[in-house]
Amino acid sequence: MIKALLSALLVLVAVSSAFGKYIPKTGKRIPQTLSRGWGDQLIWAQTYEEGLYWSRSRNKPLMIVFHLADCPHSAALKKVIAEDNDIQKRLDEDFIILNLMYETTDKHLSPDGQYVPRILFVDPSMTVRADINGRYRNRLYAYEPADLTLLKTNMDAAKKLLKSEL
Amino acid sequence: MIKALLSALLVLVAVSSAFGKYIPKTGKRIPQTLSRGWGDQLIWAQTYEEGLYWSRSRNKPLMIVFHLADCPHSAALKKVIAEDNDIQKRLDEDFIILNLMYETTDKHLSPDGQYVPRILFVDPSMTVRADINGRYRNRLYAYEPADLTLLKTNMDAAKKLLKSEL
Repeated sequence: MIKALLSALLVLVAVSSAFGKYIPKTGKRIPQTLSRGWGDQLIWAQTYEEGLYWSRSRNKPLMIVFHLADCPHSAALKKVIAEDNDIQKRLDEDFIILNLMYETTDKHLSPDGQYVPRILFVDPSMTVRADINGRYRNRLYAYEPADLTLLKTNMDAAKKLLKSEL
Repeated sequence: MIKALLSALLVLVAVSSAFGKYIPKTGKRIPQTLSRGWGDQLIWAQTYEEGLYWSRSRNKPLMIVFHLADCPHSAALKKVIAEDNDIQKRLDEDFIILNLMYETTDKHLSPDGQYVPRILFVDPSMTVRADINGRYRNRLYAYEPADLTLLKTNMDAAKKLLKSEL
């Protein structure tokens, strides 16, 4: 009898814990990560303000990737960046990183317009490095999957920090 | 012989795929989610700009939670909000939601100072609802775990959208 009661209790506990967590009408969702697939093992800043803060306090350049979920060019670039261990290691160790799907209010982050994918570097002195760009004249901050070597060269350039005026 | 070669090949593939993904020196990390524990099944905006965009386009009020990782008051509030299915459902269905650990540049989001935890509502007309506040006179937008009923009342107030001037 006690055994039966205990069993019933166990079932009750199991049922109530199954119903314990909120589940959306449309079904369970996979929580969205800050990486959004650009490097799941890396530590991403959430906002531009946060990125600037970490860049200044750790004296590392900030790399910002603007992208969109339904943009095939963004997806192609994401794939090669996420799969390139050399870039992932450099981003992890030498950069503060941020990926954004919505533009900020800072116009310095769109020197030649708002498009995706677009990669901008910001010096710890909070200067946007508009001088570091890719190979396309009409979209200076765009990169294609074939441009990874140039991107690495540009990362090296961003690592040479600007002298802050004293 | 062929069997041995095949085995060797299999081992090689296994080894190379084990080394395939970048793993930080400090060990594998759990990817950070946008929810940061405030409701893993909810869809969180990443930035204030994104939150405002969704609020306007879906005509839903935006609720912003300012918090900090190492703040026990934030952690206590997070726990009760994440575990309250009624709040989770309302947030999921009736609100655009954003949680931030870094302040934005918009001073309207800190009507009586920058402190955590702090909850602000923004109308789809982009007006910060400074009129919707908690029970503490010195920190108008602070909530404690015992204030969930007041928070729900305030969510109802935020759902009554401001008439946009025509």
